[in-house]
Amino acid sequence: MSIRISKSTILLDTKPSVLSYAAIVGKKEGEGPLARHFDVICDDTTLGEETWEKAESQMQRNAVSKALEKAKLSSADLELLFAGDLLNQCISSSYGLRDLQVPFYGLYGACSTMAESLGLISIFADNQLVTYGAAVTSSHFCTAERQFRQPLEYGGQRAPTAQWTVTGSGAVIVGQSNKPPYVKAVTIGKIVDLGVKDINNMGAAMAPAAADTIGTYLKDTKTNPGDYDLILTGDLGTVGSDLLIDLLKHDQIDISQVHNDCGKLIYDLESQDVHAGGSGCGCAASVLCAYILKRISEGVLKNVLFVATGALMSTTSFQQGESIPGIAHLVHLSDHK
Amino acid sequence: MSIRISKSTILLDTKPSVLSYAAIVGKKEGEGPLARHFDVICDDTTLGEETWEKAESQMQRNAVSKALEKAKLSSADLELLFAGDLLNQCISSSYGLRDLQVPFYGLYGACSTMAESLGLISIFADNQLVTYGAAVTSSHFCTAERQFRQPLEYGGQRAPTAQWTVTGSGAVIVGQSNKPPYVKAVTIGKIVDLGVKDINNMGAAMAPAAADTIGTYLKDTKTNPGDYDLILTGDLGTVGSDLLIDLLKHDQIDISQVHNDCGKLIYDLESQDVHAGGSGCGCAASVLCAYILKRISEGVLKNVLFVATGALMSTTSFQQGESIPGIAHLVHLSDHK
Repeated sequence: MSIRISKSTILLDTKPSVLSYAAIVGKKEGEGPLARHFDVICDDTTLGEETWEKAESQMQRNAVSKALEKAKLSSADLELLFAGDLLNQCISSSYGLRDLQVPFYGLYGACSTMAESLGLISIFADNQLVTYGAAVTSSHFCTAERQFRQPLEYGGQRAPTAQWTVTGSGAVIVGQSNKPPYVKAVTIGKIVDLGVKDINNMGAAMAPAAADTIGTYLKDTKTNPGDYDLILTGDLGTVGSDLLIDLLKHDQIDISQVHNDCGKLIYDLESQDVHAGGSGCGCAASVLCAYILKRISEGVLKNVLFVATGALMSTTSFQQGESIPGIAHLVHLSDHK
Repeated sequence: MSIRISKSTILLDTKPSVLSYAAIVGKKEGEGPLARHFDVICDDTTLGEETWEKAESQMQRNAVSKALEKAKLSSADLELLFAGDLLNQCISSSYGLRDLQVPFYGLYGACSTMAESLGLISIFADNQLVTYGAAVTSSHFCTAERQFRQPLEYGGQRAPTAQWTVTGSGAVIVGQSNKPPYVKAVTIGKIVDLGVKDINNMGAAMAPAAADTIGTYLKDTKTNPGDYDLILTGDLGTVGSDLLIDLLKHDQIDISQVHNDCGKLIYDLESQDVHAGGSGCGCAASVLCAYILKRISEGVLKNVLFVATGALMSTTSFQQGESIPGIAHLVHLSDHK
């Protein structure tokens, strides 16, 4: 049974396990430094579908299927799915997962969705509300570009602070077992908006939320950055990561020695022309579900704070002159109970 | 502590209370049969804001504030908010609630959001994960029309099966108390898609999901429609309600004597020119948070199954020739523990 130790932080008493995980990515991600860790690399990012949106849906479905297969389970064993994505009305999730016939709670957390969904399903598992549950999310460069920015054919110039939306999906199956990775705690983020309005600089918009959530978790648990091998943010990229480190330094918290960011890990920033790094729900999801959970399973990483970050704006809010609210949800993962 | 009795249904052992509730609606809803039950009727549906989207955000904020006020609480007392809405990237919720500084899990359940959010916060309360939590959602005729259909100025003809998006928001505060309404059980819906493609007939698209969830709950709890005063669907309207009753009759379940629908209750279908009834997240939310919870508090209604229904499509999925997946989440509300 979970124990709430503050307004924001919940300790998971039984420490549920991530029983299995799978990550499916596109061609560009498959050419990056994490290539050998992904379960599937799709050289054709249409996945044989007629539209990119249908391709993204198929990625979510395939990620869940692969994770189930690795756990030797079928969709009939699943009792609950938490899922969401960036597309209007979250159609990647709804259409991708509709055939599974599994109880389904849809989420919207923008690029924080992997931490939101993993946190929720872990809380459910900790309170014996599911035996097997799943969390999944995705993003696709082509669906995101045309929804949020410009027709791909336009070939617009990208700002140096802009990030590259990851084509990828990550899924986890959570339940009880005696094998790591274990989920030890969850911190639920608050919406933080410091007034950033530059949609070509999402990292700056989300960094304050990440700082708030990380600071809250460390305070709530009376721990220090040095107690963790890795504090891994979702997709702040290079610009947002620097800002995060600076923001926390103002509070006398130095995470610089243990911080990394999924948006920096997924691409080779020197050679892959992605400017400030990767972004999108699929960025944190595919890095977590390929590389990070594997390293925790192996005991190479012992204590990881996974902090996926989301920018909660839309093209409409931008056109109406609004700033960009950020949110960051945290999950503490460990190789021991 | 909650007890899962099937893949879909969770019994809430402590039976958390809806401590307070508030509903804020627009002018048209304020001219309907439930007028005297709403907390606030906004004659100016811009609420003094520059855009309808900002007005919808303000409605959510005001609904939460009003519910907190009625419970003699402040936002500082709130430990968790579940919220979502129909707009792209759920901006009504993010922008409406960003100043509250409350841990926030965003949802996307389309018009099922009130049941999804109420179910989740009740599960959290039942497992002592929150002392005070909130659930809120909204819709606005003008934001929905221009996002999903046509510019308002176009004045397009409406199909007879079309529904009218409710301008309204409903919020609940959930916690432990010895006063009704109590939340006794939750059934988490599955995505159901029988291939309906007519976006002017959302009721037909959602009815199969409602039938699935209601049938599942009755089977799981070994109860009959006659054990409830009211089985209240979210926004099937007249067309979807008739289909729901027919679909369940095929399974030898007759809910015709106890069924009603928020989309039929909120407007005078004879005089208000809304065709098949009301729809939108704010439909189920405002009917629940104005009329239904009050009648349960008074003991006039003793056992209610609240089944909000959502159509999980987008304009993109429609343009790509997809059918409309539906979902329905159920919450069992009662005047006794």
